[in-house]
Amino acid sequence: MSEGTAQPLEGEPAARVLVAGASGFAGALAAHLVWRHPRLELVQVTSRGDAGTRLDRLHPRYRVPLVLEQLDLEGIDGVDAAIVAYPHAASAPVVAEMRGLGLQVVDLSADFRLRSREVYEKWYGPHGEPALLADAAYGLPELHREEVRRADLVANPGCYPTAAALALAPLAENGLIADLVIDAMQGISGAGRGGGDELHYVTLSENAYAYKVDAHRHSPEIAQELAALTPGGPPAYELTFVPHLVPLDQGELVDCFVTPTRAVSQDELAELYADRYGDEPFVRVTEEPPGVRDVRDTNECHVHPVRNGSRVVVVAAIDNLWKGASGQAVQNLNLMLGLPETEGLL
Amino acid sequence: MSEGTAQPLEGEPAARVLVAGASGFAGALAAHLVWRHPRLELVQVTSRGDAGTRLDRLHPRYRVPLVLEQLDLEGIDGVDAAIVAYPHAASAPVVAEMRGLGLQVVDLSADFRLRSREVYEKWYGPHGEPALLADAAYGLPELHREEVRRADLVANPGCYPTAAALALAPLAENGLIADLVIDAMQGISGAGRGGGDELHYVTLSENAYAYKVDAHRHSPEIAQELAALTPGGPPAYELTFVPHLVPLDQGELVDCFVTPTRAVSQDELAELYADRYGDEPFVRVTEEPPGVRDVRDTNECHVHPVRNGSRVVVVAAIDNLWKGASGQAVQNLNLMLGLPETEGLL
Amino acid sequence: MSEGTAQPLEGEPAARVLVAGASGFAGALAAHLVWRHPRLELVQVTSRGDAGTRLDRLHPRYRVPLVLEQLDLEGIDGVDAAIVAYPHAASAPVVAEMRGLGLQVVDLSADFRLRSREVYEKWYGPHGEPALLADAAYGLPELHREEVRRADLVANPGCYPTAAALALAPLAENGLIADLVIDAMQGISGAGRGGGDELHYVTLSENAYAYKVDAHRHSPEIAQELAALTPGGPPAYELTFVPHLVPLDQGELVDCFVTPTRAVSQDELAELYADRYGDEPFVRVTEEPPGVRDVRDTNECHVHPVRNGSRVVVVAAIDNLWKGASGQAVQNLNLMLGLPETEGLL
Amino acid sequence: MSEGTAQPLEGEPAARVLVAGASGFAGALAAHLVWRHPRLELVQVTSRGDAGTRLDRLHPRYRVPLVLEQLDLEGIDGVDAAIVAYPHAASAPVVAEMRGLGLQVVDLSADFRLRSREVYEKWYGPHGEPALLADAAYGLPELHREEVRRADLVANPGCYPTAAALALAPLAENGLIADLVIDAMQGISGAGRGGGDELHYVTLSENAYAYKVDAHRHSPEIAQELAALTPGGPPAYELTFVPHLVPLDQGELVDCFVTPTRAVSQDELAELYADRYGDEPFVRVTEEPPGVRDVRDTNECHVHPVRNGSRVVVVAAIDNLWKGASGQAVQNLNLMLGLPETEGLL
Repeated sequence: MSEGTAQPLEGEPAARVLVAGASGFAGALAAHLVWRHPRLELVQVTSRGDAGTRLDRLHPRYRVPLVLEQLDLEGIDGVDAAIVAYPHAASAPVVAEMRGLGLQVVDLSADFRLRSREVYEKWYGPHGEPALLADAAYGLPELHREEVRRADLVANPGCYPTAAALALAPLAENGLIADLVIDAMQGISGAGRGGGDELHYVTLSENAYAYKVDAHRHSPEIAQELAALTPGGPPAYELTFVPHLVPLDQGELVDCFVTPTRAVSQDELAELYADRYGDEPFVRVTEEPPGVRDVRDTNECHVHPVRNGSRVVVVAAIDNLWKGASGQAVQNLNLMLGLPETEGLL
Repeated sequence: MSEGTAQPLEGEPAARVLVAGASGFAGALAAHLVWRHPRLELVQVTSRGDAGTRLDRLHPRYRVPLVLEQLDLEGIDGVDAAIVAYPHAASAPVVAEMRGLGLQVVDLSADFRLRSREVYEKWYGPHGEPALLADAAYGLPELHREEVRRADLVANPGCYPTAAALALAPLAENGLIADLVIDAMQGISGAGRGGGDELHYVTLSENAYAYKVDAHRHSPEIAQELAALTPGGPPAYELTFVPHLVPLDQGELVDCFVTPTRAVSQDELAELYADRYGDEPFVRVTEEPPGVRDVRDTNECHVHPVRNGSRVVVVAAIDNLWKGASGQAVQNLNLMLGLPETEGLL
Repeated sequence: MSEGTAQPLEGEPAARVLVAGASGFAGALAAHLVWRHPRLELVQVTSRGDAGTRLDRLHPRYRVPLVLEQLDLEGIDGVDAAIVAYPHAASAPVVAEMRGLGLQVVDLSADFRLRSREVYEKWYGPHGEPALLADAAYGLPELHREEVRRADLVANPGCYPTAAALALAPLAENGLIADLVIDAMQGISGAGRGGGDELHYVTLSENAYAYKVDAHRHSPEIAQELAALTPGGPPAYELTFVPHLVPLDQGELVDCFVTPTRAVSQDELAELYADRYGDEPFVRVTEEPPGVRDVRDTNECHVHPVRNGSRVVVVAAIDNLWKGASGQAVQNLNLMLGLPETEGLL
Repeated sequence: MSEGTAQPLEGEPAARVLVAGASGFAGALAAHLVWRHPRLELVQVTSRGDAGTRLDRLHPRYRVPLVLEQLDLEGIDGVDAAIVAYPHAASAPVVAEMRGLGLQVVDLSADFRLRSREVYEKWYGPHGEPALLADAAYGLPELHREEVRRADLVANPGCYPTAAALALAPLAENGLIADLVIDAMQGISGAGRGGGDELHYVTLSENAYAYKVDAHRHSPEIAQELAALTPGGPPAYELTFVPHLVPLDQGELVDCFVTPTRAVSQDELAELYADRYGDEPFVRVTEEPPGVRDVRDTNECHVHPVRNGSRVVVVAAIDNLWKGASGQAVQNLNLMLGLPETEGLL
């Protein structure tokens, strides 16, 4: 079998794309999605720790026959756009340099997600490029589609905020949330590569546990998005969010427990969600509680709103690596480049 | 290897025990625990659907070399106590007949857990033996130890109520719960045998989903126990409870999100829980969020209370088949028979 | 999200395709692959037991929004080809009727795989349509490409024979096999839907076991293919084949232990395999032992030949549902219809 | 719950035991088994890399409330016996020093398993204490019980050799093996702690692969034991052995494909195995192919011999950490100390 399979490009590419940090789970999937995209050309994949290795050797499931290189922006040429999958703080300076070179950038780190520098620095430490914060669109197309279309820098949302915001947007937009608890679980790919014995197969097999029980930094990101949606300004409640690791490779389930500001019937709920998401290509309102297996290896979010006593419970399922990271990055890139939003993602 | 291994009895048994409904996961484990118990003699195991099969053929992990028989209480003789692992509604008449014969009974079904016949019938349908309701002790020893000691009929708690009540008792007893959300997950053994393609390996592998999102019948059981603990009578809040299946065989994790009636510091929390559980043989207050793997195949409950913003989050981990069912049944039987509470369970 | 997604057809379809028996794992995947195929139109999906259910409700991972129907060949019109995923014996009469109507057929059952009626009947019982045996091509394109191109009836190989034949063809064709042991393992989807407690998640989790240790009916199929490849007629050795179930959903690993007829160096091995498979689009000769995860959800077979002392060991990995069943069925259909062999499979 | 649970000792201990290298999977289980043993006192647990950590913090499933210390044999006092779970080569000098101090030692490394220094050095490199080789008994009690009883130094067998030798002993002892292929699979605990991304949950989930396909160093150990059993001296055949990793935490399945020296009927097979193992406390000859789940967390080996055509196939299942390592170590220690062989292991 010839290993250097050519990219399935249809005619001239809409953009020549670099994926920086392509050795991690999200970066490698981003490279794979760009590689198989009919309108994007993958011109380079980079890695700080794994340069010299072919990407499909490191991640055999992803059929990208390119060798990982050290990122060298000085010599870069003929690149139109980049997806950056660096850790937070490490990402900001690289993104700034890329923007200086005129590249359109989708950044998977947390560095440009929080509009407030103050909030960012409380949770993540000093911000290296605060001037760029105002330029970044928050890349959840279902909430910010037009902003993303116009943006040259898109902050790709966190996986939990993606699922939570999609689960809650119809309620938040109607001012229906009086109090909120979010309980979530994620497969092990969400914890990244590395990790030593904590992520060893034996440690996690037949296991499940909560982490960051006292506070998780996706909380302010969720709060930011809900505040923006809420009519009449930021809501009064303080959300509580606790995530878990469960023995899956990919997949994420987010339960939202809403104390509503007024009684909401099941019919009204159904209508609210059908209206909100009827035209969305990647959001499905389901009749049964969604399983993460149903959305595995897809860019879909399945949302299921239900009344439970006087509360409203909304369950959302995504694949943390797709809609929660790299699939959404390509969805954003499609919008930024004027391509059909679902191109390369079905 | 001689397969008819003798029971490891030390002298005269404290009781001769029958396990009825021993072909399901909980019944089979109950038989196994009685079989290896140094002071109990397992005299018979019964099953309606699998009579004629040796128990260790049906459940190879449980080393009980007895053949399952049809239950025939008429001919029964020399039996002092029974553990009944029947479905709800099917259990009540069998328990009644056993009580008529003078047997001490631990019932794993829901039939005698709810003190109010009205509440029972709302969730489970008509009750076959309502007169016995008043005789039954709720078999959560950490909450009702003396009652269990005096009882001849013990209703073994549901698995979720066990973990939830242990997670919340120190708060409930101090009137600290103003509002409550419980989000829980369980391994597949909790769904029982049978089940067809819904419980097929392929259906559940790499999957996780919520069930009974609108209402689960463990809710009233949890509410009953919290109400009993709360000073000044039943609390005003309405609890919300949503369970999930995750790809484990055994194990259960219960997250309790408490809006406290007043501010509680982390130090106060730690002290409350240490005081409450310091002498309990099966409850451990942990410094780190507990993993279900830590309690697998044990009768322990690991409890971890943490402040998160203005809320209190308590995570509890148990093995749903042990502390959530059969381990607790033997703990109860030990108490009823005047044996050391941990006998046969360490 | 609009659920009735249209098929991604490019112009006039090359064939209008029916998938019969589309409720099982293989049939459902076949329907999914036809649905997303740019040159095939999926016109109907049928099921005996699940008629009336939408396919994507039964198998949420497969995005086919068609309702399963009862098969009714009398009223059939405008269908050019069929993929049949029936159990053996049930398949033959349906295939015969379809052939009578002029449909091109790929049959996933064992009914037309064994060229000898006698051998078939020894392992499977009476054959319902022996006259058709001579018409069927054995659908392993890497061995019988031209025959498949010319055929109107293709017997899709068993999953184990597919992997074994691809692992061994370069040795068999050169008369290098003097004795042969095959040890194989497969994920649980290979055992099909249904199956009751034997395929319950709890039964199989943390488990692995051999089955059909004394004899498995894929043995004569493997023997038939190796005999056909061996120069100078059927070989003298008797192959031994033992399969296992391991806790995966999809995936199959086949180890072939060959006593060679003469000494073979590692270099010669490498050359033999490189020459044989260099141009094959779906076979890759790997430098490292292949993992089933590497071929998950692909139509690839990864082959790894190694000397071990005086023996040759060849390991082959496939996805049992893809190259071992439905992916290969579409590969065959592509050939029968004169389409590019990899169309819809990359 | 009081965490410093006392050991369940019955009277004066038969020996005071040190476990060296107790931070790995096998060492930690050895410590756990000694801790819960009614006749052994666990006096110290040591670790080079994790000294200072409590063992039950590192391995929560093992309830040993002792803090890991650096091994310091100079200051050692009041220790009668040691279980050493060091890597090969690192073990020999420690064992030698312990023997110099008069301790009885069970060594889990490979350092004293191979009677021939030459063979050892071919596979493992220079041997640090060759003079001790003659003193060591090979600790497979079912083959060398009396030797183990008399020994002060026992080399605990490798996990694959344990299962293979038990699977094959009845055939080897009767000179029935003319040729031999062994194909085996193991859970991930067999690969040890550490290991980085190779043992990451995501790497191994939904995966299975062969390793050391060209040669594995358990081969000479298996060959040594089979040669010793074979009447008339070392056999002429060359065994081929290939192991796999499969997604389990614990468990091992070993398939032995035997070309017999003469025809053997299924009845003769059954009788051979029943006679050989009828009195063995830890070996069971099973009617059905054994599952690794059946022996999980037990010291049992389940053996299943079957005719397949002219070959004999024997499948053996063990828990790689129990009968394949630490359970067998305690079985050996029981014998060395004159205790009942099954003490603390049922």
